[in-house]
Amino acid sequence: MADLTVETVTDAVRAQMEATPDIRLREVMDAAVRHLHAFAREVKLTPEEWLMGIAFMTEVGKSCTPSRQETILLSDTLGLSALVNLMADRHHGHDATDSSLLGPFYRENSPMLALGDCIATAPRSALVVFQGQVKDSAGRGIPHAAIEVWQTDAHGSYDMQIHGEAKMDHRARFVADAQGLFHFRTERPLAYNIPMDGPVGRMVRAQGRHGCRPAHIHFLIGAAGYRELVTALYLGDDNYIDSDVVFGVSEALVIMPTADAASPFPDLPAIRYDFALARASGEAASRVGADPSTLVQANA
Amino acid sequence: MADLTVETVTDAVRAQMEATPDIRLREVMDAAVRHLHAFAREVKLTPEEWLMGIAFMTEVGKSCTPSRQETILLSDTLGLSALVNLMADRHHGHDATDSSLLGPFYRENSPMLALGDCIATAPRSALVVFQGQVKDSAGRGIPHAAIEVWQTDAHGSYDMQIHGEAKMDHRARFVADAQGLFHFRTERPLAYNIPMDGPVGRMVRAQGRHGCRPAHIHFLIGAAGYRELVTALYLGDDNYIDSDVVFGVSEALVIMPTADAASPFPDLPAIRYDFALARASGEAASRVGADPSTLVQANA
Repeated sequence: MADLTVETVTDAVRAQMEATPDIRLREVMDAAVRHLHAFAREVKLTPEEWLMGIAFMTEVGKSCTPSRQETILLSDTLGLSALVNLMADRHHGHDATDSSLLGPFYRENSPMLALGDCIATAPRSALVVFQGQVKDSAGRGIPHAAIEVWQTDAHGSYDMQIHGEAKMDHRARFVADAQGLFHFRTERPLAYNIPMDGPVGRMVRAQGRHGCRPAHIHFLIGAAGYRELVTALYLGDDNYIDSDVVFGVSEALVIMPTADAASPFPDLPAIRYDFALARASGEAASRVGADPSTLVQANA
Repeated sequence: MADLTVETVTDAVRAQMEATPDIRLREVMDAAVRHLHAFAREVKLTPEEWLMGIAFMTEVGKSCTPSRQETILLSDTLGLSALVNLMADRHHGHDATDSSLLGPFYRENSPMLALGDCIATAPRSALVVFQGQVKDSAGRGIPHAAIEVWQTDAHGSYDMQIHGEAKMDHRARFVADAQGLFHFRTERPLAYNIPMDGPVGRMVRAQGRHGCRPAHIHFLIGAAGYRELVTALYLGDDNYIDSDVVFGVSEALVIMPTADAASPFPDLPAIRYDFALARASGEAASRVGADPSTLVQANA
């Protein structure tokens, strides 16, 4: 019998997993065990700390509900979601717009609006106009691309946080014109706190972090034959632009409203941003959390 | 603004956690993020796989109830619990008996029996006699040490798995004599399967593992001034002695019943094992899961 020691136990676990029929599962779990054990060995994890970790992970799982995904929030705040997105972007090439986190506030079936409409049902602050074009990687407009957009109100809350399921606001669907062009009006979104009343919020507070995301507008953009793009644009003058608690900001996704006399609403500050979609490669089109149906499964 | 890439995102997360006031929390989380990201980078974790991981960890947390701790089972089957125990044993020196996993079937307030009694209330198989002595690290008997013992019946089930909370069987408490000596009679325990009806069972099956623990007898031994010992003894002729699904077996904890004409029950096969306790060092006396009150918290 091979005796287990601090040095040999890791290989004993790997040996027991070696017969895993699915090659990819074997590869992933082998690496997971090696890195998990290396972590425990490096910090000399004590039984008391182990038990705190068990209790924490149990509470994270138990905090998940159909409308709250604490496990994803943990992944987000530890930068794992951002890393997975960055690797997926790199894998699919640099021709497309960077992806960014879907976040927990995406909803299907938001109102279908006409180009130029305002996505705030009862604006309480000054409006801006957003103008964009959906293009292929060669810069040609993609006709009639489908755009979904959602953001906080001017006080930093998503509709779900105020109205629950009862009302949609500050979110809409648009169809671009024959050149892939679209525009809409909205209020400036505001920075907001991730949910701080659960175990992940406690962790973030214990780490002395502010728990805020810089103000941003979410986009989910699709067109037949192209990889679905899940991204967000971040307001460059936000206090938290350099310290997003979920590491979703990349330089290429930063926007600033400016004067634009040529815009369809020349009196409003204008944001201009063009999105490039990659050709679908036959693989499942997804970024982290990109598919709401799988998000629902993750909540189950 | 520092732009996030596959290469820089890990340091961005670490920088945001640098202000953690508690030095040990900072150290543990810094290592956790580094190893978590190294794992994701090594296997090039895809968004689809990430989502499977999120769903799995969520289900593990949600499967926990007051009488079932799936997160601990995950830690056990990945060898993390064994590693933490091995490090704790090493930290506290080699003079004491090896610890082993507490497991999920410990119960407080088991029946207090007299030395020599049988812990099976209605034995259905041949009995064995267990004789032990509780000693200090110099080999001197510890008077009146408190012993708790629990095991499966001869069919491989714990009392809780058959009777729920209603009845205790195959478990008892004893007080050693003035020389630290104790003995009791019991049935041979049988190998058993970890709970296979949850996410961890699915993982173990997908890995082609049998999911069995070799037959064993649990012990929790305490005496004033000594570190509480949580351990188990494993039957050397069990089919699973070399492939425990939770990696709890060490060579020093293997036993075999033999004939012993000098035992108080000379007609029964006899198991002889002496336990050495380490002096309490002022730290909290605990092994992984050693304290039932913290175990309850982990279930919360």
